[in-house]
Order: sequence, then C-alpha cells, then structure tokens
Amino acid sequence: MNYEDYLKTAPDDRVKYYQRDDRMYHVMRTQQFDTSLLEELFEIANQIKLMTRKPNGIDFLKSLLRHKKAMLYFTQPSTRTFLSFLGACQLVGMDTAEVRDPSLSSEYKGESQEDAVRVFSSYFDMIVMRDPKPGFCEYMAYYLDRSARSVPFINGGSGKDQHPTQALLDLYTMYRSFQDRGGVSGKRYAFVGDLLRGRAVRSVIFLLSQFDDVEMYFVAPDAFQVAPDLEQSLEQSRVKIIKSGNLKEVLPDVDCVYMTRIQDEYDMSGESGQINYDQFSLYPDDLKMMKPDSIILHPLPRRSEIHPEVDLDPRAMYWRQLRNGLYIRAALMLYVFNQSHRLQEY
Amino acid sequence: MNYEDYLKTAPDDRVKYYQRDDRMYHVMRTQQFDTSLLEELFEIANQIKLMTRKPNGIDFLKSLLRHKKAMLYFTQPSTRTFLSFLGACQLVGMDTAEVRDPSLSSEYKGESQEDAVRVFSSYFDMIVMRDPKPGFCEYMAYYLDRSARSVPFINGGSGKDQHPTQALLDLYTMYRSFQDRGGVSGKRYAFVGDLLRGRAVRSVIFLLSQFDDVEMYFVAPDAFQVAPDLEQSLEQSRVKIIKSGNLKEVLPDVDCVYMTRIQDEYDMSGESGQINYDQFSLYPDDLKMMKPDSIILHPLPRRSEIHPEVDLDPRAMYWRQLRNGLYIRAALMLYVFNQSHRLQEY
Amino acid sequence: MNYEDYLKTAPDDRVKYYQRDDRMYHVMRTQQFDTSLLEELFEIANQIKLMTRKPNGIDFLKSLLRHKKAMLYFTQPSTRTFLSFLGACQLVGMDTAEVRDPSLSSEYKGESQEDAVRVFSSYFDMIVMRDPKPGFCEYMAYYLDRSARSVPFINGGSGKDQHPTQALLDLYTMYRSFQDRGGVSGKRYAFVGDLLRGRAVRSVIFLLSQFDDVEMYFVAPDAFQVAPDLEQSLEQSRVKIIKSGNLKEVLPDVDCVYMTRIQDEYDMSGESGQINYDQFSLYPDDLKMMKPDSIILHPLPRRSEIHPEVDLDPRAMYWRQLRNGLYIRAALMLYVFNQSHRLQEY
Repeated sequence: MNYEDYLKTAPDDRVKYYQRDDRMYHVMRTQQFDTSLLEELFEIANQIKLMTRKPNGIDFLKSLLRHKKAMLYFTQPSTRTFLSFLGACQLVGMDTAEVRDPSLSSEYKGESQEDAVRVFSSYFDMIVMRDPKPGFCEYMAYYLDRSARSVPFINGGSGKDQHPTQALLDLYTMYRSFQDRGGVSGKRYAFVGDLLRGRAVRSVIFLLSQFDDVEMYFVAPDAFQVAPDLEQSLEQSRVKIIKSGNLKEVLPDVDCVYMTRIQDEYDMSGESGQINYDQFSLYPDDLKMMKPDSIILHPLPRRSEIHPEVDLDPRAMYWRQLRNGLYIRAALMLYVFNQSHRLQEY
Repeated sequence: MNYEDYLKTAPDDRVKYYQRDDRMYHVMRTQQFDTSLLEELFEIANQIKLMTRKPNGIDFLKSLLRHKKAMLYFTQPSTRTFLSFLGACQLVGMDTAEVRDPSLSSEYKGESQEDAVRVFSSYFDMIVMRDPKPGFCEYMAYYLDRSARSVPFINGGSGKDQHPTQALLDLYTMYRSFQDRGGVSGKRYAFVGDLLRGRAVRSVIFLLSQFDDVEMYFVAPDAFQVAPDLEQSLEQSRVKIIKSGNLKEVLPDVDCVYMTRIQDEYDMSGESGQINYDQFSLYPDDLKMMKPDSIILHPLPRRSEIHPEVDLDPRAMYWRQLRNGLYIRAALMLYVFNQSHRLQEY
Repeated sequence: MNYEDYLKTAPDDRVKYYQRDDRMYHVMRTQQFDTSLLEELFEIANQIKLMTRKPNGIDFLKSLLRHKKAMLYFTQPSTRTFLSFLGACQLVGMDTAEVRDPSLSSEYKGESQEDAVRVFSSYFDMIVMRDPKPGFCEYMAYYLDRSARSVPFINGGSGKDQHPTQALLDLYTMYRSFQDRGGVSGKRYAFVGDLLRGRAVRSVIFLLSQFDDVEMYFVAPDAFQVAPDLEQSLEQSRVKIIKSGNLKEVLPDVDCVYMTRIQDEYDMSGESGQINYDQFSLYPDDLKMMKPDSIILHPLPRRSEIHPEVDLDPRAMYWRQLRNGLYIRAALMLYVFNQSHRLQEY
C-alpha cells in the first residue's frame, strides 16, 4: 500500500496500526485517546512536573531514556512545537537530532521519501514528525512497521490535519486546573474564535466530549462556527451545546474560556476580512464578568484576540498551558517506551 | 513600558533592572562590571580553565548546571559567538536549543516578538540573545521580569551596540597575561585601527579605564579616532591618553597591542576606501620593535591587519583570547546561577 | 604551503601528515587503511555494536569520550552522512556542534577560511569536515598541525574526491557478512552501475584489493566502466578482473553484489541519458539467480537501480550497511583518541 492508497483507508481502521501489544505504539490521532489513557498520561505528566522542581528529580528523569535517540523531523517549520518536543526529549534524557530544512536532504539525488525516512529510522529510536503533507506521518509509521526496523512515531502536526499533542496539553491544563474541583467532568467550556478551521480546537473538543456532563459554548462568527460533522458527533456523545455570537453573554456562565485566533493563513477567499474580531476577543474589562475560579486558555500564538494585560490575571493559564506541553510530551515518550512504571523508583 | 519607551530610558537607569538580590542577574552592558566583579569572574574562569585539563575536572564542571537549559537565540548571524556560547554551555553541562533563523519562527502568524521570546522563556532557564535591534535584548529581559516567569538573559551582542562578553574575554586575556607581572594596572595599552565604530574596542577601553594607572595609546586614522564622548569619560577617570597616527612609533613603548579591523560593513559613505591600512597593520618585521613580554590581542575575525606569520610569535595571544571566551562565558553562567561557590567542592 | 601548493603535493606523500606517533591521527584517505588496521577497526566496531544492545553497554560507551567535543563542519550538504556522524558522536558520548550553512559564517567580514577553521579548532577536540573543495579537508588538517593547536580531522567526504568512512562501512558490512565463512578473502564481488565516477565504489574496490584471492566483476555500461588507472592498480595487486555489460550473467557466480547509482548530478555532457538502466538494476525476479548466501550492498541513496521489493529479501544488506556506518564511525573516533583499549574494561 503506497501513500495514495493509505490515504484512502478509513481513519478508524488506521488506528489499529498504531497499537502494539495492546498499547499505543505510534502517537498519531486524537482518536487514540480514551479517558482511561488520558488519565494515565496526565498522572505521568503530574509526576514529571513535580520531579523537575528538584535537582535530583531532574537527574532521575534524565536517566530514564538516556539510552534512546530521537529524530525531530520538522519539514514544516514550527519553532514552538519543535522546541517543546526538544525540551521534552531533554527532560527524559534522550539524545536528539533534527531535520528541519527539506532542501538539506538528499532528495535531489532522486531518493524516495520513504527511503529517506527509513534512513532516519536506522539512526534513531523514535521519530517525531511534522510534515505538511496530510497523513504522511501516519503513512510512514505504517510503512516502516512493515520493514525489518520499525520505530515509534509521534505526530508533531500535519497540515490542517491532526496535531494530537496540542490537544493533549490543552486537556491536561484543564485537568490540572480542575483537579481539586471535581475534575474536567461537569464543567462549562466556551470555545471562541475560528471553530471551523482551527485544528487544535476541533481536537480538544473531541477529547473533552468523552468526559461526563460537559457543556460546550461555541462562540464564533457564523462563517466560522463549528463544523456540522463535529456538531453531529457531539450530539451523539450527548454533549450539551450552546452556539453564540456574543462572547460577553457567555463569559459569566463558563468555567473555561478557550480562545483561538482566526486562521487567516489558510484563508483563500478573504472572508475573514469582514469579521469584527473585537467581538471574539478578550479585554481586561471582560475579566470582571468571569467566574473567580474560571480559567482562560489559548493554544498560542495569539494575535489581538487576547489583550496582553489579561496575562496578569491569575485566571490566564495560557503560559502555563505552554509549559504543560513539555510535561505531557515527556509523559508520552515514557509511555511509548513503556518506562513510565520506573517513575515509582524515584 | 514598550520597546520604544524603554529605549528612551537613561542607560544608567537601566542597569538597576539587571540586578537581583544585589547580584548581577542579567548580563547586558559593560557598565555592569566594576573591578571587584571583574576579578571575581576572572578567578572563576581561571578555575574552570584549570579543571578542563583533567577528565574528572571536566566531569565535575559538567555536573554544575546539568539541571539547567539554555536557549541560544541568535537572529543576528554570528557563527563564532554562537559556538563560543554553545561550548561554554557544554562545559558546565547545560542542555541547549537554538533559534538562529528568524524565518523559522511563528511570527508569520502575527505573534508579537514579546510573546515569541516569552515562549522560549517557558522552555528554558536562561536566554543568550543576539538580535540586531539595539536594546532589544535589554528590553526583553525587562519585559519578562515583569511577567510571572523571568529567566536570566545574557546579551550576545546587539547591532553596533553592546557586546559585553567580548569585552570580558579581552580583559580576561590581559588579566591572565599580566597576572605574574603586577596585573592589568600600571600598563601601557595601544588600541589600533577603527576606534570610532568598533564596538568591542570601546567596551574594553571602558573596562580597562577602571583600573589604576593605565596609559592608553590610540593609533588610528584621523577619521576613525576615538570618539569625543569616550575620550572625555577617560579624562574624568584620569586615564593618560596619547593619540597617534603611527603604529611603529608606539610599538616599543607598550605592554599590549590591541589590533582591530576597519569596520567597513558599517561604512555607508565610503570614507574607509582612502585610508592606507598598512600603517595600522602588524607585520612580522614589526615584532622586533616590541617589548619581549608584551602581548598582541585582536577580537577576531581579522583581515589583513595582522599578517598570518605573526601568529607564530609567542606574543600573539589572539587565538588564546578566543579560547578564553569559553572560560569567561562559562564563568558568567556559573555566576548568574549562583553556583560558582560549588567550584570549591572539587 | 598554501592550499594551492598543497594540492600539488603527491597524494602518497600527504599520507605521512596524517600519522602521529606511528598511529593514524587524521582520517583522510582510503589509502591510509591496510588490512591490519581495517581488522583492528572492524573488531572495535563489532564490540561497539554488541554493547549498544544493552542499556549498561550504552552507558559505558557514552562515558568513553564524554570529555571530548566534536565540530561537524558540513558546508557541503549531506543529511545522511551528517546524521551518521552525529549518531556516532552520541554513541561514544561526545558533545557536538555543527556548521552547516556557509552563509552563516563570519566570512563576509573578510576572514580567511584558514582562520575560520582555526576558530573551530579552538572550541572543539575533533573536526569532521565535509567541504566541496577537493583536498580542502586535508589541507586544513595539515595547516592546523603547524599551529599551536592541532586537532584530529575526519574527512566526511569532499566533492568527487575521497569519502573514506563510506568505504569503511561498505567493507565492514562485507567483513561481518562473511565473518563465519572465511572472511572477505577468496570471495567474488560484482560492482554494478557507474564504476567510473562513483567515489564510494572506487574506494571500496581499492580496500578490497588488499585482501587475498578476491575476484571482481565490473558490470557497467561501456561509458562508465572502471577507470584505466584503477584497473591497472588492481592488476598490480593481482586481483582477478572480469568486465561485463550483463548483470544477469554475473549474478549466479558472485558472493556479493555491490549496486551503485548513475551519478548524473555530475553529468555535464548528458551521456547518461542514453543508457538502458534496466540492465544495471536489480529486480525481485533476479534474486532467484543469486547464491542463497550472497549479499546485496548499496551505498545509498538509491533511485530505481534496486526495486523496493528486493528490500524484503534476507540477502539485502543495504539497510544494515547504513547502520554499520554508525559503528565504524564510532570505532574510528575511539581509535583516533586512542581509547579503544578501554572497551576491555566493560
């Protein structure tokens, strides 16, 4: 099965390729994570976060995967995701190498990309891949599984497609914030901005929908409201949905405000140009309307949708959310190499 | 206070932002270093240099900051300064990551540079920054100090502005060379070449002026003689100054010759074109005129102002000066993280 | 002696510059390796390979050169060779830094390349160099040997010229494959494809010619048959040679098939365009003709000269060959730093 044929397979069928010995082996799609796996990963991340506060905790963490080497294959530029994965590798002691500029590769010599990636698998024990071609990371994991040398892949984001680790860090931040208040279940979440094309927001909505009694407010311009397929799937999961075009009305009701930016780098037809972004932005004055123990998230980078002064409010969690990416990515690496049980040795 | 407003503050006022608990926290400007701090740093660098000669010394050094991670943010290209900082981080065991190509950043998504740098501060414990915008490194340190997550910054050079670690390694080389001969004080120094625009030479002149009884010879074409503001400040410090247009006359008198190149990459009006560089260059024949225990320095890279055969003379210290950059930068890192006292444990 | 003069020296004379204390110090040319040195290196590589299978073996290996730092100077792009050297450095615990983009260097400031490389030698203990200029790596090793600070160089490939570590890993793969069957001597080898311009294949032919009783089949289009100088040298070494234009005729006779691609990136006159590559390619059907215990090698990257389905055959050794590059390069590093005897401590 070549790349084109692989893309024609049903996404639900593909998930089985990512398992090995009844465990997640490749990290590819948000669909792989049920609440039980999520909670296991979040507990691992909690332990890692705690250990990083003490020098001997850091030493211990760095010993866990010091025998492993990771290739960071980022042919789609992304400084922040790259640095977060690099930081996570360093946290658990993995050596790393990077391929970031496709023009540096040997492809001019007529090599297939399958061969090129197989070369990397020869030198490394794990591949974190961010490639602009949809499904390419998934296909390469499938392809190498059929060779004599397969290594685990982590999808670091592919085009408009999947970006599972972003969704994980978003949900992990909710998990930590609500840990002492009954958890993620039973809370009200507002998702604000571009809900149609934002990859991250679709993924976190899916993950959240697996928890009990969550209510979701979708606050977006009509042109960027949540997609019908996602809405339908939420209804099947019995999630209560409220759509709105007015952020100020929603703010007093919710426990979490998840802000997003309008993705106009994908905007071909110019429709974003006519939207009044102010209605989907958060200003210092808006904070007064919010519950005192609510939280504000944003996958970053932001533009004008959150005023910088909001950063000073204790409910602004987006910088912490960023750091949580380190811990949850490190947790994934320990899980994939089946080393998380060793955290008990500390 | 935004970047533009910060630039309007008086440089002397800014220095207070770089202190924490009465110690230097950010390394920003040459003005931060008085003779007492310089001597403390030079002693740390001496110990580091000694330790690097033995495998167990190297092991010990690498353990000192192995819990820390440094971001090398070099959006102004500079291979040699970058490699020296990287080598210094490796010497004291810090993990590193680098941002070197501004086009790889997420800035195309409309993020502010403040946010971008704050992202890096989330993943790392120290930021070494070389950015072409004057004062930008200083502003970012100030900006992050006002956030919930501040990390120490080291200025790796900014445009025509400050490059404090270069001045430190220059002075450290003088310090080591004169260690057994009464120290840096009471010596005669010739500064040769472009004294007007050379950033490094201005800084080292300032540092040196704090020591007692130094005499300075300024050997330069009229168009590139030392700037009036610097000359005035030296007079206030009671430094004895001799200006000259003739290197050969000066050579027999001095203990140190600090050569520089004409900075014609900043030369817009073409005035460098008409200068006879030979008069401000050092040739093998000139060595006979120099004191037997004098030293020759150069901040490198050089062009034709020092003939390659001069390299073979034992008084040529510029290659050693380069290596001293490793030790003094590593010393700064130990100092900033307040770990230099641990050198005694060895 | 400057670069131009150095190029005029006889290659055989140069080899003496690469020795120190009667041992190989710089790794420059395939001619440096006699059968005794090859066998010593292959035994070191065997031990390294064995150790990498166990966590404490990996720990031990990483301790061997943890006091050393390597500069990977790759101004000629080559992702796979770069990654292999990087992986080898990580295997034996060396810190690394890289220079990969010549435009990032300080050369715009008018510095000579001799000075630039000397800067790197100041910060590092070994330089692995891949530079497009023929003989430049050799010249820089020679040049720095005459300075106060010389460090070992490893030639990572220079233009059409030498690429000694590729030849070593090719021969090491033969060595391992025939280890239980009397060794490399007394076997029949087919070299297929572009034997005229392929740098790797020329080098491996030379190395192999030093072993007893090898027979070589050269299977190539007339325009790309083995060069007269190489043929003559083989005759002097009493190697039995058979030239052929027909791969299918040769396959049943040989113990090893070394496939190469037509190097049309060096092809100025367009002669490669008229050759029927199919005759010099290996298809699944061809495997039936081959001896059951023969091996298939390829220096990679490949294009169409080996059909991907051949990969599944156990005689296809080219992916293993790639991994062998890690072990033999790590072995070279231990040898050059004279640390290979420490493997016995494990």
